[in-house]
Amino acid sequence: MANRKAKSALQEFPLIRGLARRFAHRAPGLIRGIGDDAAVVEPTSQTWWHITTDLLAEGIHFDFTSASPQSIGYRAGMANLSDLAAMGADPRYMVVSLAIPRTLKPSHIVKIYTGLMNACRRDRVALIGGDTSASKTGLFLNITLIGTTPTQQALFRHGAQVGDLIYVTGTLGDSLAGLRIVMPLHSTPRSIKSRIALSSSHQRFLVGRHLQPTARVAEGRWLNQQRLASAAIDVSDGLSGDLRHLCEASRVGAEIELDKLPISTACHAYAKATGCPPFQLALTGGEDYELLFTAAPSSRSTIEQQARTRGYRVTCIGNVRPKRFGIQMSSGGRRVPLPLTSYEHFH
Amino acid sequence: MANRKAKSALQEFPLIRGLARRFAHRAPGLIRGIGDDAAVVEPTSQTWWHITTDLLAEGIHFDFTSASPQSIGYRAGMANLSDLAAMGADPRYMVVSLAIPRTLKPSHIVKIYTGLMNACRRDRVALIGGDTSASKTGLFLNITLIGTTPTQQALFRHGAQVGDLIYVTGTLGDSLAGLRIVMPLHSTPRSIKSRIALSSSHQRFLVGRHLQPTARVAEGRWLNQQRLASAAIDVSDGLSGDLRHLCEASRVGAEIELDKLPISTACHAYAKATGCPPFQLALTGGEDYELLFTAAPSSRSTIEQQARTRGYRVTCIGNVRPKRFGIQMSSGGRRVPLPLTSYEHFH
Repeated sequence: MANRKAKSALQEFPLIRGLARRFAHRAPGLIRGIGDDAAVVEPTSQTWWHITTDLLAEGIHFDFTSASPQSIGYRAGMANLSDLAAMGADPRYMVVSLAIPRTLKPSHIVKIYTGLMNACRRDRVALIGGDTSASKTGLFLNITLIGTTPTQQALFRHGAQVGDLIYVTGTLGDSLAGLRIVMPLHSTPRSIKSRIALSSSHQRFLVGRHLQPTARVAEGRWLNQQRLASAAIDVSDGLSGDLRHLCEASRVGAEIELDKLPISTACHAYAKATGCPPFQLALTGGEDYELLFTAAPSSRSTIEQQARTRGYRVTCIGNVRPKRFGIQMSSGGRRVPLPLTSYEHFH
Repeated sequence: MANRKAKSALQEFPLIRGLARRFAHRAPGLIRGIGDDAAVVEPTSQTWWHITTDLLAEGIHFDFTSASPQSIGYRAGMANLSDLAAMGADPRYMVVSLAIPRTLKPSHIVKIYTGLMNACRRDRVALIGGDTSASKTGLFLNITLIGTTPTQQALFRHGAQVGDLIYVTGTLGDSLAGLRIVMPLHSTPRSIKSRIALSSSHQRFLVGRHLQPTARVAEGRWLNQQRLASAAIDVSDGLSGDLRHLCEASRVGAEIELDKLPISTACHAYAKATGCPPFQLALTGGEDYELLFTAAPSSRSTIEQQARTRGYRVTCIGNVRPKRFGIQMSSGGRRVPLPLTSYEHFH
C-alpha cells in the first residue's frame, strides 16, 4: 500500500540502504535482512519466539524539545527490550517503521537509528527490516522486536501464587524525577525550585535514568534460566499499574510494604527537595524499566545470594495475597487499597 | 515507553481485550497471544520465518473521505499479505499497532480491525499482539506479519537469470483506475467525464479491485512449492518501479512487451473513456498486488499448464536481459528505456 510519491520525496531508498549497511550485521539464523519483500530467519530448534511491538508518537511519548533524537531512539529500543526482559527472552531481531514529517532533517533520522542501535548493541540485536513513510504531522516510530527462550521456559504474568514474595529489580521513581527535571512544563512550582536545591550529581543521575534507562535483560534471562520467578512484568507504566496487570493475569491480590520500596539516594533527595513523598514517585513513575517478579518463599535465599554474586539489585517489597484481598499498600501498621492515581492516604 | 494518561484516555484496555477475544483464535504453534509483555510462538522445525512490516499514515496512504474504515483495514492487511505472497510464504501471525486521534470513534477502530481480519481470514492468520497509542493528529497503522516456508525454499528478488521469462499474475492498472473513480480530486477533467462514459459494472469492478484487492498468496505458495520461479516481487508500487527493484536485486536488465501486458476489459474501457493509454495505467498503477516473477524458459509449459489447471491467470510479458541492456519496453518493433514517471514516448 506504498505511496511512491510520498516515499520518493523522502528519498527513502538511499536512506534505508545507508542505515541497513550501517546497522544490519550478520546475525545467527538470519537468511535475508533488509532488501526483499520480507526478512527471512531460520529459527533454531527447541526455541520459543517472543514477539513484542511498541508504537511511539511525537507529542505523546516523546518530544524533540526535551530529548535529543538519539535519546528518543535509545529509549524506544529500551522500552521494547524491557518487554523481552520481562519474558526472560534473548533479544534477537528488530524491524523498525518510521513515519517522517517533511520538516525532520535526515540527520535526525540517522540519529534516531543510532540511538536505537546503541540500545540494542549490548544484546547484539540485528536490524532485519522496516518501512518508512511520509507523515503529514509528527514523527511516529514503531518497533517490533523478536527474542527467544528455550521451549517450555519463559516468564509470564500469570504464574504468581498466593504466598509468593514480590520482588523488584533496581530502584523505582528515578525516571519520573528525571523527566520532571528535564521537562519543567511537567513540574509543579515546588519541583522547579528543587532544581536549585538538588545537587548536580543527583540531577545527572536522575536525568540519566530517564534519558538512558537500562532494560533488565540479563536479570530476566537469569530468573528464567534458573526458574526462580513464578511471574514477571516490566515496570513501564509504573509499579502501581504494572502490579495490577500481574495480579489480574495471575488472579491474585498483593500487599506492598511502602517502606521497603527501593528508592535511590538521588530520588530521596529529589523527593525531599520537592516535598513529594518518595513512595509516590516509586508507585506512579513509569519508564523505570525494572522487573517486577514473584517467587516462591523457598527461593528467597537462592535469589538473594545469586543476585549478590551477579551484581544485580533485587528487593523484596511485599507478598502475593488471595484475590479477595485486593491490592493494598501498608506502612507503619496501616493498610489501604493501592489507588491508581491518588496517593493522599499517607500524606 | 507507554504514556498511561494517553492510553487510559483512549480506554485502551477494554478495547484491546474486546478485539483480542474477537480475533485472536487459537493458532497452531501459538503459546501465548495478546495479554503478556510479548506474544509467544513455537516455530515448527525445518521452517524459515518471513517477517514483513508496513506503516500506513492517514493522508498519505489512506483517507477517510474516500474509503471506509473497514476497507482501510482490509487494504492494509492485503498489502502485508502480498509481501509474504512474494516470498512464497504461508501467512501465520500478525501484530498490529494503532496511533489513534481523539476524534476517531471507537466503532471506527473496531471496523478497521474487522476489515484487517477479513483480509486475513482466508489464510487463517492469527492476531497475536499489538499496541495502541494516542495520536495528536491522524491515524497511523503499523502491521507486522510473520509467515513460514520450508527451509531453503523461498522466492527472492535476486534470482533472475538472463534469458528467463518475465511473468505477471492477474491484470494490471485496475487499482489505479478504481482509485481515480473513487477519488475525483485525483482525476483529470477527462477522467471525471469518463465516470459517465463507463458502465456501472466496469466501475464496480475497478473500484472493487482498488478497495478490496486480493493478495496472491496461493499463487506465491504454488510457485515456491513447485520451484517454478527464479525471482519474485509483488506489484505494490507499480510494475515499472517493482520490475526495477527485481532487476537491481538480480543485477540484470529486462525487456517488457507493452502489447502483452494483461489489462482487464474494464481497465481497457476506462482507458478508452479517459484517453489515457492502458499500458500507462498498467505500468504506473500501484496496489494491484499481483506477483511479478521470472522463470527459466524450460518451465514455460509447466507454469502455463499448472496455472490453467489451478485457475490462476499468468501472463508472460517479457524477458530478462543482461544488466547493460537496462530496462526497456517494446511495442510494434520500437524499443525505448522504461521511464519511471513519464510515458510520452508512445503517445
